[in-house]
Amino acid sequence: MTSTPPWSLHEQLARDAATIGDLSLSRVLLMNDANYPWLVVVPRRAGAVEILDLGEAEQTQLMGEIAFLARALKETTGCDKLNIAAIGNVVPQLHIHIVARNRNDAAWPRPVWGAVPPRAYEPAAQRRLVEALQRQLAGILLRP
Amino acid sequence: MTSTPPWSLHEQLARDAATIGDLSLSRVLLMNDANYPWLVVVPRRAGAVEILDLGEAEQTQLMGEIAFLARALKETTGCDKLNIAAIGNVVPQLHIHIVARNRNDAAWPRPVWGAVPPRAYEPAAQRRLVEALQRQLAGILLRP
Repeated sequence: MTSTPPWSLHEQLARDAATIGDLSLSRVLLMNDANYPWLVVVPRRAGAVEILDLGEAEQTQLMGEIAFLARALKETTGCDKLNIAAIGNVVPQLHIHIVARNRNDAAWPRPVWGAVPPRAYEPAAQRRLVEALQRQLAGILLRP
Repeated sequence: MTSTPPWSLHEQLARDAATIGDLSLSRVLLMNDANYPWLVVVPRRAGAVEILDLGEAEQTQLMGEIAFLARALKETTGCDKLNIAAIGNVVPQLHIHIVARNRNDAAWPRPVWGAVPPRAYEPAAQRRLVEALQRQLAGILLRP
């Protein structure tokens, strides 16, 4: 009998993104790409690769967290469109992208993946956006 | 006071995809691209552009329909990975892509959008796949 190791964030997501905080199911990250405000939502369930690997109640919880985060991102950024996707062809750990798109952004109207090279944030700009999102999410972020 | 026109399928989706059938919230289509088995799920709600435009109960229903369809697509095709996305930068009508990916498909590991030109199905092959999916979905497809 093998035991499942505890959940931990995939090293590539840890390298590419800053932490915003934890919701009851998911860790919420901000991708370090100043081309677009871009959240990554990672359910803290060891071994999950597909949304199908979550139970039905967790799938409902995930949809609720996605909707809450999408609204917070839209209100914080005033974006024209949201792009929401679970792809995971390269990083297998289940994660959902929520990207704030604008008609004048670097990739519009193409999807963001592989469209243009990532552009790292200025540290102060990244910190301001993380803090603005933390304020929008204050009601549902778990306290550390 | 203006009244909302009734829902109808966006003409570009109607042109690019074949109908599989209706679930209680969504119409289910098969994209006419033989590079990958590719479902498009369209909630029949007039004017909806974002998942946020659905009410909370409809968001939960949509997640249930996505999960059911994703499992049916995986069982029908034996794919390596599912890609699930709501993008809508070009066709504004809310629609969710569920794409069956394989490590040897035409775009792997890139996302499918814009990766390679679509390749139309042979009519008999398209009909076989539509019918196989209809059999998998028999328990939840609404009768015409």
